[in-house]
Amino acid sequence: MPILRCRSCSATYGLDDRRLLLPICPRCGSPLRIEKEEFSWSPRGRGLQRYSSMLALKPVENRGEGDTPLAVDEFLGLRVWFKLEYLNPSGSFKDRGALLATSHAILLGAGCVVEDSSGNAGLAVARRASINGLESVIVVPRDAPEGKKKAIKLMGARLVEAENRAAAAELAPRIAREKSCYYVYHLGNPLFVEGLETIAYEVYEQEGVPDAVVVPFGSGGLFLGIYNGFKKLQSLGLARRTPRMIAVQGVEVAPLYERIYGSKPANGSSRLADGIRVPNPPLLDDALKALEESRGKVVAVNDSDIVRALKTLVEKGFIVEPTSAAAVAGLEKVASTLREEGVRDVLLPLTGSGLKMLDLLSQLLLP
Amino acid sequence: MPILRCRSCSATYGLDDRRLLLPICPRCGSPLRIEKEEFSWSPRGRGLQRYSSMLALKPVENRGEGDTPLAVDEFLGLRVWFKLEYLNPSGSFKDRGALLATSHAILLGAGCVVEDSSGNAGLAVARRASINGLESVIVVPRDAPEGKKKAIKLMGARLVEAENRAAAAELAPRIAREKSCYYVYHLGNPLFVEGLETIAYEVYEQEGVPDAVVVPFGSGGLFLGIYNGFKKLQSLGLARRTPRMIAVQGVEVAPLYERIYGSKPANGSSRLADGIRVPNPPLLDDALKALEESRGKVVAVNDSDIVRALKTLVEKGFIVEPTSAAAVAGLEKVASTLREEGVRDVLLPLTGSGLKMLDLLSQLLLP
Repeated sequence: MPILRCRSCSATYGLDDRRLLLPICPRCGSPLRIEKEEFSWSPRGRGLQRYSSMLALKPVENRGEGDTPLAVDEFLGLRVWFKLEYLNPSGSFKDRGALLATSHAILLGAGCVVEDSSGNAGLAVARRASINGLESVIVVPRDAPEGKKKAIKLMGARLVEAENRAAAAELAPRIAREKSCYYVYHLGNPLFVEGLETIAYEVYEQEGVPDAVVVPFGSGGLFLGIYNGFKKLQSLGLARRTPRMIAVQGVEVAPLYERIYGSKPANGSSRLADGIRVPNPPLLDDALKALEESRGKVVAVNDSDIVRALKTLVEKGFIVEPTSAAAVAGLEKVASTLREEGVRDVLLPLTGSGLKMLDLLSQLLLP
Repeated sequence: MPILRCRSCSATYGLDDRRLLLPICPRCGSPLRIEKEEFSWSPRGRGLQRYSSMLALKPVENRGEGDTPLAVDEFLGLRVWFKLEYLNPSGSFKDRGALLATSHAILLGAGCVVEDSSGNAGLAVARRASINGLESVIVVPRDAPEGKKKAIKLMGARLVEAENRAAAAELAPRIAREKSCYYVYHLGNPLFVEGLETIAYEVYEQEGVPDAVVVPFGSGGLFLGIYNGFKKLQSLGLARRTPRMIAVQGVEVAPLYERIYGSKPANGSSRLADGIRVPNPPLLDDALKALEESRGKVVAVNDSDIVRALKTLVEKGFIVEPTSAAAVAGLEKVASTLREEGVRDVLLPLTGSGLKMLDLLSQLLLP
């Protein structure tokens, strides 16, 4: 049984410790990391279960999560491996994290799950709870778009409205504690991040190990999940190195950028990158370490960068949401430097579906 | 080079005959069938290209088409293989047909493609044309929903409005002829149907050969494509038999049902099955033959059947459009008979994404 260690006070817990219904340190409230994990490479079957031997926890039965296509394209003088994560069953990579977090909830005997997100994570968690017969409570800010609220209700969740985003993040764990539910906590739950490692495993089987990875950076979960995945492959001798990790943030909310450069990015608006608008990511220290270890970069983009990249993507046949386009906008800014530094193969996960928001896309892209 | 034969006057044409820019018989205007096709089983690579050796034509480069997940679930006392075709890149199985038809257009040297469809086919064709740098003209009835028109424009197509559906079907080939464009003609183009065979090949590799297949039946292309795929596998000795083919139609427009039973289904509304509302499918005779050869069935469903089935699907985590739910509604009607007849494994493709229409789904399913 894997052990979870507190990133702050170093206390340790078994993966099946019931106190982990709130997957933060029961002693000091800090994020946990999975350690003393035994893993080996023996892919078998489909979806996330294919990589059970690499994960801290065997995922419950797959229902279309993972196994996303890879489309390789010459672009900006690079060989870009577009990983179509938006073709996950609820329309984003969050389905992978939700599957592993739900598997943990089931291991702990929870009958319900709670999450605070009006976006892709909320939908993914509600969907997965419905599949596994768990109740779900999704806490959203009162001013979240009606369409998103409806989609979450559609997946069978109970919707609770909070004053704002911060209030939602406070209310969700309180509800979880009161009702003995599992708190999914996609921003900092190590199991959620572990589920995202499977992107690296699939890419490894599809095309190998890229020279660099470019991802939109919100909580940092996607960034860390992919990095951890390649690192595990390296530790098994399957990958010679880990790829360089390039994080892309919106100019308005760019905590990783600020930590690296010591100041805010140039002024501008990045409201289109709403999927990566996370002011205080709990895993920031880990992300910083991964960025340094991998000789990575962080780059900030604004709305006009994003719209331009979105247009390029749609013309290429990738119907994605603006947050996904942020990664391409970031790649455009660093492509020539990367080329000079010898980078050739770049993995770029396209994170969320544009089918949910065809109206917005038309508004942004049509004359 | 494979030969195409007219289903009516028996004239034959090479696949590269420029007159096939209109993929119907240049002599009499009837649908064509592919024959003298040499094929062998040697899957290699990803997507539709993986099955090039089974197809009349090697598909141009894949961009996320195909490789859709299979989710196996105990349901109605059967083992149902849900094939998640709605996770294709434009949200429906039509991406497969569009890829092969576009490959044919490119073989013939066309610089543009024309199609008449305001639905999934129009979107798939416009998307694929954009990827391959072809112009596309999509002809839609004037009263098609604004959202669908916008989505097609978003994919870079020129939108032409016709008086109604019938007028659109007449105008599209005329435009194709005038501009020397390729007419995609998803209702009767044998290359489009050939692209859909790849569903059978993927399923064969994922899980084997099912006892029965249940599909929503509009043009019959999906029905025939899957059947032809399993038939080719059988002719190579890879499948012992072909599955029984069960077609599901909406009660309002049910030409196959009427041909089998000699009368219309019971009264009722089936406007929710708009994706399979095809009054005169050009391939009806072939479908009838496939149905008889395979000891198949046809069943008709109405809107309340569809809403019930849609609710079941969404609870199972499948976010699909109502037309997809028609297949499940049909399965519910024949499940007990199938069980008595020894059927155990049933392939059921879920055809189109519900992410495009979350509002409609909420309206139908939320209290």
